[in-house]
Amino acid sequence: MRKLENVPFEQLKVGDATTLTRTLTEQDLILFAKVSGDTNPVHLDQEYAATTQFEGRIAHGMWTSSLISCALATQLPGPGGIYLSQEVKFMRPVKIGDTVTVKLEVTDINLRRKRATISTNVVNQDGKTVVKGSAEVMPSVEKVIVDEYPLPDVELISKN
Amino acid sequence: MRKLENVPFEQLKVGDATTLTRTLTEQDLILFAKVSGDTNPVHLDQEYAATTQFEGRIAHGMWTSSLISCALATQLPGPGGIYLSQEVKFMRPVKIGDTVTVKLEVTDINLRRKRATISTNVVNQDGKTVVKGSAEVMPSVEKVIVDEYPLPDVELISKN
Repeated sequence: MRKLENVPFEQLKVGDATTLTRTLTEQDLILFAKVSGDTNPVHLDQEYAATTQFEGRIAHGMWTSSLISCALATQLPGPGGIYLSQEVKFMRPVKIGDTVTVKLEVTDINLRRKRATISTNVVNQDGKTVVKGSAEVMPSVEKVIVDEYPLPDVELISKN
Repeated sequence: MRKLENVPFEQLKVGDATTLTRTLTEQDLILFAKVSGDTNPVHLDQEYAATTQFEGRIAHGMWTSSLISCALATQLPGPGGIYLSQEVKFMRPVKIGDTVTVKLEVTDINLRRKRATISTNVVNQDGKTVVKGSAEVMPSVEKVIVDEYPLPDVELISKN
């Protein structure tokens, strides 16, 4: 079982950085629609989406943002931290098959309030920025090592 | 089939508002972990989560944020719009069985850039704010009415 390990507040430095890479699948699009309730056809209906300015289905912006939150929660600062706020600007669409990389970098540390500001930018396989953003977190002051929780497989069952 | 219908830019007014209500299920938590990759046990492992300050499993903050994006994409301004940016502050945890209501309200309209600012606050069943936020969107200038895309059922298959 993979362990998740944090960087405790006292060890965190400006410039600390990590990345997380993932490729968007059609199942991701459908699951995100399901779990968010966002059934806008620009994400799901290829025929309709082809008529839009995006010329095809695009990821929910919040899916890409959820990868940011994953990187914060599992890598930097990792488990035990508290997610205080997030800003995101959606710069470019993400499509099925696109490989996106979340880049986190600590940009500020507030010693008094025990908080860190982390830049949270996401680029695609062409190096173009798809999301620009910044997060504020309160890392744990203690060392935390936890087991990653095992997830079930997911099967999609058509209603037809 | 339910239709999704937008409010075109020219009809949008400061003060226009809508709400969206949803109750968090255990399946939501698991699916959100799956689709985001965020397997931090504070969301998934009741035994571990009980030892944290949250005293139990909590929703991913981005799940609650995804309900905001759902309300924007399907209700106000609705389909055809472009999601430009989102700010969220996570004020309180959301737990399984909690019923949260997203409250959208148009707070500013930029006629020249054809953009709208929308406050995006989320409250729980006790009326307490769980997320405070604001979004910027570019609503479609045209009337858009589209079919909501039908989603498959989802089945979770334990790996054990």
